[in-house]
Amino acid sequence: MSREPTEVELERIERQIEERADAEQRYLRALRSASRDPAATPTDPPRITSRRRFLSGAAAAVAAGSTAAVSRRANAKVPAGAVERPVPADPTKAQGTPIGADGGYGSRSQFETEARWRYPTVTAESSWSMTPLEGSLGIVTPSGLHFERHHNGIATIDPARHTLIVHGMVDRPKKFSMADLHRFPSISRMLFLECSGNTLTEWKKPTLKTVQGTHGLTSTSEWTGVPLALILREVGVQPGAKWILAEGADAAVMTRSIPIEKCWDDALLAYGQNGEAIRPEQGYPLRLLLPGWEGNVNIKWLRRLQVSDVPFETREETSKYSDLLADGRARQFTFVMEAKSVITYPSGEMTLPGTGFHEITGLAWSARGKITRTEVSTDGGKTWADARLQDPVLPICHTRFRFPWRWDGRPAILQSRATDETGYVQPTIGALVGVRGVNSVYHMNGIQSWAVAENGSVTNVHHF
Amino acid sequence: MSREPTEVELERIERQIEERADAEQRYLRALRSASRDPAATPTDPPRITSRRRFLSGAAAAVAAGSTAAVSRRANAKVPAGAVERPVPADPTKAQGTPIGADGGYGSRSQFETEARWRYPTVTAESSWSMTPLEGSLGIVTPSGLHFERHHNGIATIDPARHTLIVHGMVDRPKKFSMADLHRFPSISRMLFLECSGNTLTEWKKPTLKTVQGTHGLTSTSEWTGVPLALILREVGVQPGAKWILAEGADAAVMTRSIPIEKCWDDALLAYGQNGEAIRPEQGYPLRLLLPGWEGNVNIKWLRRLQVSDVPFETREETSKYSDLLADGRARQFTFVMEAKSVITYPSGEMTLPGTGFHEITGLAWSARGKITRTEVSTDGGKTWADARLQDPVLPICHTRFRFPWRWDGRPAILQSRATDETGYVQPTIGALVGVRGVNSVYHMNGIQSWAVAENGSVTNVHHF
Repeated sequence: MSREPTEVELERIERQIEERADAEQRYLRALRSASRDPAATPTDPPRITSRRRFLSGAAAAVAAGSTAAVSRRANAKVPAGAVERPVPADPTKAQGTPIGADGGYGSRSQFETEARWRYPTVTAESSWSMTPLEGSLGIVTPSGLHFERHHNGIATIDPARHTLIVHGMVDRPKKFSMADLHRFPSISRMLFLECSGNTLTEWKKPTLKTVQGTHGLTSTSEWTGVPLALILREVGVQPGAKWILAEGADAAVMTRSIPIEKCWDDALLAYGQNGEAIRPEQGYPLRLLLPGWEGNVNIKWLRRLQVSDVPFETREETSKYSDLLADGRARQFTFVMEAKSVITYPSGEMTLPGTGFHEITGLAWSARGKITRTEVSTDGGKTWADARLQDPVLPICHTRFRFPWRWDGRPAILQSRATDETGYVQPTIGALVGVRGVNSVYHMNGIQSWAVAENGSVTNVHHF
Repeated sequence: MSREPTEVELERIERQIEERADAEQRYLRALRSASRDPAATPTDPPRITSRRRFLSGAAAAVAAGSTAAVSRRANAKVPAGAVERPVPADPTKAQGTPIGADGGYGSRSQFETEARWRYPTVTAESSWSMTPLEGSLGIVTPSGLHFERHHNGIATIDPARHTLIVHGMVDRPKKFSMADLHRFPSISRMLFLECSGNTLTEWKKPTLKTVQGTHGLTSTSEWTGVPLALILREVGVQPGAKWILAEGADAAVMTRSIPIEKCWDDALLAYGQNGEAIRPEQGYPLRLLLPGWEGNVNIKWLRRLQVSDVPFETREETSKYSDLLADGRARQFTFVMEAKSVITYPSGEMTLPGTGFHEITGLAWSARGKITRTEVSTDGGKTWADARLQDPVLPICHTRFRFPWRWDGRPAILQSRATDETGYVQPTIGALVGVRGVNSVYHMNGIQSWAVAENGSVTNVHHF
């Protein structure tokens, strides 16, 4: 009974589709009208976005008009993390790739080009790279696209030689191998991790053009590790202990002081990320994971914990990672990442492929627990309506929101506003600047605005 | 105030640790006593497991006694999905790898060797490969380790050329491009996907040695896609329609008939997996996702849906993927994967590194909704105790369970038993065989037993 449609049937179906000339045609028109500067500017991420990636391919195919048995797109370069394979014109007529050709560990499609984008700092070792949120789907960030922030590059460490020393104000100083740590009970949690410098370019004026640039220093993984509290019990914390220095084994020997309450509460010694070992650029084989706290204190390549009664006043908590106020004073030890949200589609540098239905979607998160509400405005904050929060809504985790929108073709300003379970509401940039001034670098969680022009182009604007 | 420990302090710490000679030393002893056959047999997965991977490395380091500035392990071969980098003896004294050296898409550590294992079928195109569950952490399966089942290899498809045709008993037959589908509202769900053939080798006697071999045809991803119901509304399903044929664009032109109720209920046209595009071996750029139903009906490389009033009786639902009973009759269209669980640590071919505390952990899942309970027995089913279910417990999703166990050094038989929200309790293999006989291939969800011997070695046994 099973059969493919006949040629006649297929022709009829295709004719009907042509007559309707719906979304597909509008897409192609929108694409043709959207001329793009092919030269990447040094201060912006690449402009290809997930929602547009199929368009680019379609355009190339149309331009080439190719019917060759094996085709490749113009300018095809195999993206990182992919393996190039011949592309048959009809995949049902060519035997597929055998299992195992990948060595037992798969890679992404050669047609997928999403990439972390490195901010153009002076060196590539003390730098950061950002997650392409415009192409994000769901709440998990692929490990290969998790944002990075390194102070002296990515350490390469043999886990068989790696140890964690715990000493200072403890009864039984100890050195733990990775095998030792794997022997302890562990837990897994889906958690966002956000660099305190996320959105730092946007305090004074809209600066970066895409959501990868403005918000790409946040990512979510399922982290697995040993509760630090178990290790603290193992070594016996002495009375009067109040801080723990965490130190990395990277070339920056990154160090931060952590209040001991957080270490007892929910800190993890994490060795797992998204179901496998933590990635090298996330601290392989071991990182400190402090749920909801600014990325920098989640020390990677963790090799030492020193228990003390005072903070250690390291460079990264004095000259850096403190928040300068308008009056010249500075806030220190501002660990918590407050509620924040951003619309990922549509977002900067996209062009809407026509009027009509669009699903506005984005991410919301808070260190204080669960996101309880995310509102969306399409008129620059004059009116707001609740977006749908997609299950699962987990504490201290990206929450995906979705909002149906019918675009009438007139200019619009899109905003999202998150509320967390403490009742905290994400502020406007204006309100935030009112409290903090504009000397601040870190902890910018103001409401992001995307302006949609009549031609459908989307740009980063300040509007509050 | 921040400083590294002095040499004297470090020596003191290390002396104290030596004196205690705890877990680390026990590990090494256990390792030395566990001699292994280095030759892989063709019918079993590789024996290196996640929990042991650090031991292997430690042994190599001890054997070599290497203090060279840059070391590599003996027989080091860069695993698939990793990039080899020099390993400095002291990573704090060597500048790390700059950001961007990976092309913006990261890879796993060169020390990680977990791999899918291909079952030794006659050809590698019609075959399957299994997730290394013994190293699984949390509930997400890394996309690179998601199990595979292909009937004629992995299709390579340009998404710009890929279309989905929906026709048959519909008012408006349509062809959708990937760009069209991206225009629709989407949802993301964390869902397990299990091959109906998972555990097929274990009906009559314990056969494969590791949990990868016995249970590695189940994996969990966060899937993103368009609810099929939206597409059905778009094309207008005609009265009397009861089945939909789903057809893949692979060289097997895989076809299955799906009851239309499932298509209206929760079926997805999935284009996303774990936050990025679906992987090639999972059906890039589009697969059907039928939450909780046997893997085979979740058609990959989906290119056609034909609405009908009758099932299509394809080869994959007649000679295959039906369940032969003892009396010679066969069950057909057995889609639902019933509640099942398995202990992943400790599991077959591991050797416990000593008596004392061990965290027994594993996965439980059910197509019928949430797992409400998982019990663990360490005495072959005589007594049972509740394991802790780790949050989040999501419907139709792997659920991680954890159970603290103090091993006294005597032989033990470890089992887990899942209960889902319908009250269904995972049966023993004996009970299952009592109903189904031993002609069945698919839908084997009996309780798995792992025997722990006095020397700590763990083997696959039947015990019921």
